[in-house]
Amino acid sequence: MYRIAYFGPEGTFTEQAARYLAGGDTHAELVPYETIAQAMAAVRDGETSAACVPVENSVEGPVTATLDELAEDEPLVATAEALLPIHFTVLAGSGVRAEEIGTVASHPHALAQVRHWLDVNLPSARHVATSSTAAAALAVQQGEYDAAVAAPVAAERYGLPSIATEVADVEDARTRFLLLTRPGTLPEPTGCDRTSVVAAAANRTGALSELLTELAFRGINLTRLDARPIKGGFGEYRFFIDFEGHVAEPRIGDALAALRRRCAVRFLGSHPRADGVRASIQPSAGNEDFVSAADWVESVRRGDTA
Amino acid sequence: MYRIAYFGPEGTFTEQAARYLAGGDTHAELVPYETIAQAMAAVRDGETSAACVPVENSVEGPVTATLDELAEDEPLVATAEALLPIHFTVLAGSGVRAEEIGTVASHPHALAQVRHWLDVNLPSARHVATSSTAAAALAVQQGEYDAAVAAPVAAERYGLPSIATEVADVEDARTRFLLLTRPGTLPEPTGCDRTSVVAAAANRTGALSELLTELAFRGINLTRLDARPIKGGFGEYRFFIDFEGHVAEPRIGDALAALRRRCAVRFLGSHPRADGVRASIQPSAGNEDFVSAADWVESVRRGDTA
Repeated sequence: MYRIAYFGPEGTFTEQAARYLAGGDTHAELVPYETIAQAMAAVRDGETSAACVPVENSVEGPVTATLDELAEDEPLVATAEALLPIHFTVLAGSGVRAEEIGTVASHPHALAQVRHWLDVNLPSARHVATSSTAAAALAVQQGEYDAAVAAPVAAERYGLPSIATEVADVEDARTRFLLLTRPGTLPEPTGCDRTSVVAAAANRTGALSELLTELAFRGINLTRLDARPIKGGFGEYRFFIDFEGHVAEPRIGDALAALRRRCAVRFLGSHPRADGVRASIQPSAGNEDFVSAADWVESVRRGDTA
Repeated sequence: MYRIAYFGPEGTFTEQAARYLAGGDTHAELVPYETIAQAMAAVRDGETSAACVPVENSVEGPVTATLDELAEDEPLVATAEALLPIHFTVLAGSGVRAEEIGTVASHPHALAQVRHWLDVNLPSARHVATSSTAAAALAVQQGEYDAAVAAPVAAERYGLPSIATEVADVEDARTRFLLLTRPGTLPEPTGCDRTSVVAAAANRTGALSELLTELAFRGINLTRLDARPIKGGFGEYRFFIDFEGHVAEPRIGDALAALRRRCAVRFLGSHPRADGVRASIQPSAGNEDFVSAADWVESVRRGDTA
């Protein structure tokens, strides 16, 4: 059976993403792990076939635990992604009416993302921080607090009535999740793909600029760039670079080889983009341009042309 | 009197940074605000002369609320920075012995950063999430929990005994804090300075590469780069770029003008680096090189030389 590890507990946005990424496979077993590192260790150790973890949130920024784990230990590659709108559901304890709500619990990040809504709609409720949105729903189920701000999936999971859905101060807030597996067969290119690498650029002036110029000179569009310190402090950095295209394409393979010549690079996956955006390809930087230029060099080497 | 707004509550690492940045001014009044946005609004509105806020943590990454606030609304500039090692103090309720600790409270980020220590030293304690490290100390003072993981300053503030100090799973974990003021007199250059800008690079292939190349070609060393989505979702990005040097230097002024020609740029400050690292200057990219090259162009224009 296909087992997917995910960053738990049950009833969070990550479970929702894992369900979505399991796709039509209704027999897939979703297994919650307490930390991102443990979910990723499960797939490394072969306990599960894949792991679903968050990688970036448009309000909170990069998920540093995921990035750091991807750069260290045994390699994992992303084979799919999901982009979830972060719209919260406000759950009340059974029998608690909206006007009776004196406490509302959630993870501090979630409370921060619905603060304005709470001020307007539950102005007298005290805010209580919990370790996850699902922990808040559980505490409400157990009668500890009156209401919870949680993922939509928690309503069903904890059997609690919703007093509001689609709640978010920032309308466009989204989290992107990755489905990670051990290196193996890659997904087919679709024309709407994303490739991710982590590069340990040398610690000298211009090193990052050179890596980005290798991509820009090949007409490759960046989609994300995050710098993370390599050790605990702020010393040397590694760069997580996402760009349009698939490693199976000649233009992308050429770019990856150029990055690899310049520094230590780890491939983190090529897979379809959840937003379906097609790669923009610059004039004279298409795959056919790379192929015909390589063919020409070969024919020059053979003495067939000049 | 000199008043400094800071991201509160009292008894947090940010209060510790604000105290440090107040320097010898023992009459400075430190005023806690509930959110980063409110602390920054206080200095914009003239309620305080300055605001102290965190900008990046080596484990958790950039503080997105600070970055977003710096890019929007009325400009503020950083005039100083502080770099605090994030070593926690574990506080116990008065009369509670270490072996009796059944609950330990803190902000989820702090609990994540001492998880290993707690597993070894307080293996049977239940972890409880609170809205800040100081809120955990307060709850312990009030007898709600047995122990708190907090900033060293909280021990004194809440009058609680420490059962351990200098606790951190990642030894080098640091947070950098900025002292922000309204635009005005800049600090003097010291040779060990940092300049910060936020640039809204055009949303096209190569735009970021060009900005970084402008810096690299002038031999200017990057110290940080963060990309943040401009609106809620993952669409267009703005880039927070920190580099060595001071805007008063000819080589840095030349680079800022080049960035400004390419896109909308906001200056976020030039000030001494807390780590005291001297700017590395490349051959032929020193201030005297920029000055003598400009002098030569002037003399060519006058017809004095060729």
